[in-house]
Amino acid sequence: MRRQNLGAVLRYVHLHGPTSRAELTGRLGLNRSTIGALAADLAAAGLVTEDVPATEDVPATARRAGRPSLVVSPCSERVYATALSIEPKRLRAARIGLGGRILDLRETPRPCGSSPLDAVAPLAELVRGMERGDDARYAGGAVAVADTVRDADGTVRVAGADDTLVAALDAALGAGPGRPGLVAGDLADIAALAEHTRGVATGVDDLLYLHGDRGLSAGMVTGGSLVVGHGGRSGKVGHMVVDPAGRRCGCGSRGCWETEAGTDALLRRAGAAPGASPLAVLRAAALGDAVARDALHGVADWLGFGVANLVNVFNPDLVVFGGTLREIYAAGAGTVRSRLDSMALPASREHLQLRASSLGADAPLIGAAELAFDALLADPLSAPSPQ
Amino acid sequence: MRRQNLGAVLRYVHLHGPTSRAELTGRLGLNRSTIGALAADLAAAGLVTEDVPATEDVPATARRAGRPSLVVSPCSERVYATALSIEPKRLRAARIGLGGRILDLRETPRPCGSSPLDAVAPLAELVRGMERGDDARYAGGAVAVADTVRDADGTVRVAGADDTLVAALDAALGAGPGRPGLVAGDLADIAALAEHTRGVATGVDDLLYLHGDRGLSAGMVTGGSLVVGHGGRSGKVGHMVVDPAGRRCGCGSRGCWETEAGTDALLRRAGAAPGASPLAVLRAAALGDAVARDALHGVADWLGFGVANLVNVFNPDLVVFGGTLREIYAAGAGTVRSRLDSMALPASREHLQLRASSLGADAPLIGAAELAFDALLADPLSAPSPQ
Repeated sequence: MRRQNLGAVLRYVHLHGPTSRAELTGRLGLNRSTIGALAADLAAAGLVTEDVPATEDVPATARRAGRPSLVVSPCSERVYATALSIEPKRLRAARIGLGGRILDLRETPRPCGSSPLDAVAPLAELVRGMERGDDARYAGGAVAVADTVRDADGTVRVAGADDTLVAALDAALGAGPGRPGLVAGDLADIAALAEHTRGVATGVDDLLYLHGDRGLSAGMVTGGSLVVGHGGRSGKVGHMVVDPAGRRCGCGSRGCWETEAGTDALLRRAGAAPGASPLAVLRAAALGDAVARDALHGVADWLGFGVANLVNVFNPDLVVFGGTLREIYAAGAGTVRSRLDSMALPASREHLQLRASSLGADAPLIGAAELAFDALLADPLSAPSPQ
Repeated sequence: MRRQNLGAVLRYVHLHGPTSRAELTGRLGLNRSTIGALAADLAAAGLVTEDVPATEDVPATARRAGRPSLVVSPCSERVYATALSIEPKRLRAARIGLGGRILDLRETPRPCGSSPLDAVAPLAELVRGMERGDDARYAGGAVAVADTVRDADGTVRVAGADDTLVAALDAALGAGPGRPGLVAGDLADIAALAEHTRGVATGVDDLLYLHGDRGLSAGMVTGGSLVVGHGGRSGKVGHMVVDPAGRRCGCGSRGCWETEAGTDALLRRAGAAPGASPLAVLRAAALGDAVARDALHGVADWLGFGVANLVNVFNPDLVVFGGTLREIYAAGAGTVRSRLDSMALPASREHLQLRASSLGADAPLIGAAELAFDALLADPLSAPSPQ
């Protein structure tokens, strides 16, 4: 019970930032003295600080009432998680403080078609570069792994996070006594979790997060929980066939959604080199370039097409566009919505909101940190178990 | 705690049928005297009977050990639920005993394009016909409502179960003091629940149930829970567009999956009248009729096409074909699997099982009864609340 209450207080300030004891009392439905004791324990453990608020931050009503309520803040500099991502074209590592603050973030390119295991050494190198030699507390680590890999010739292979990868990363990062091992998950699932926890989907329990990179994948939240599927490998929406007469896809099928609605499709339609920046095409479209505008229109139309299919299947309250889809959606929102309105059933679209990711490229890392902090938030006063 | 244990014992015999006290002790991890007391309480409440097993049912080892363990059985005749279904072409009502036994089942045709509310009076009539005038205990009722309706001209409207329908049914069936109101849900969701609880998907927590009637819909279970979506209206998979150059659908879109893979498509391809029985076409195909065989092949191929899309999205362990799809799948399983193997990603299909529904046309009623029994199973000794 007390452990649960400690967790509730720590989770609240982790998610909402500095919060007065008075507000915690109201939000968590605990009485004032209980909150005071819990906050004091968390402070003694070095997880939060308690400060007298600056006078200008105290509302006039509270000022009149006497001594202001102490403000409880997460110790972002002193308690951190290691968040990693293995993305199709790059590897990233971040040191993320309690409260979700990115304290350090590094990245390195990833060779096309390399396997997740090839990422272990360079990721460990990035993590070593972020070490600070102080006594900050390591709460845990997690890695977000893009679900599919393409070889140089475009062949799609399903990669994902498996035990071998986790074991290799643990070995390289020195998991062991006093240092918990990594948690791993699918990148789109983890990014969906990030948007659900601290992004544009906060408070929305039925959502579809679409992630664009070279291909398209999805993280689906229903009733507040991720749809994970067999072996955690759900959400390969890029390989939903939308046009049986369409282009050959690297997966061996024809007319997969990602052959028409992903970054590669945008570049192809715009006549740009594969691997070029989609942002250049979007900028050209914004400046009125006809070829770029047609490319954007075509891709946005197919994007709406696939979203219509998925909302008929899931009926979420919100669709979030992340990764490279964030900018594509922002530039082509009208076309996406118009195709959606012509294809989705009224019962599936009338209530539906479409939004660009608010966490952007950092969503996978922020979500990974959430996974990594989970054990600490569930039981704040247990040290990482020494064995 | 005791309420929970009573529920566990009652649920076990409800799902597994007559079970000896000795086996309950092992399965539920409770000690022998606790099981004895719980079973006696349930028997005193008229929910189970306890009987000395017939000698031939007792294993030789147990016979030697002395007095055989009493067998606990659900009182199927004395405790019942009312299960209703509003299907596109018929209305059904069943009296289903504890243990899932169908005690009585009646149906009446439903006029094409009629609204769910039009079903209230005829359903109430069916229910009245099943009344027996004895003192059997009514545990509750539930109604499974097909998610879409087609007007006579083929226009698709999303119907589904709403508060108005439930209130009208409650009024017609006499809910009130001592008689709990109905629970309502989507027909494919409820049929999925039935297969998950007592059918071919027992023990499988990631499954996709596809229901064919005039159209196609789905009930999706992930991590053991139904995907319900906004307002309970998920699973309209029949309106996933699979061919942008395809036929016009009653929903206003073009190339919806159900225009190619449903019963109507089978009849159309076979040159049969809409509304004819798909079984006649399947029989003709089995007898070698070339047109019927081509029709079956075409429909099974498109069935595999849509299933491939859905398994790439969800990655379930099992796909169950129910409603009219049960027979179509049984007749065309090879074609379905072959299309699936050519389109789904290896990671989504290698572990995947495809199965025909084992509960068949009764799945919606059996699932509805499960919903209706839920309150009793959660708290077996509370009478339906008199107000």
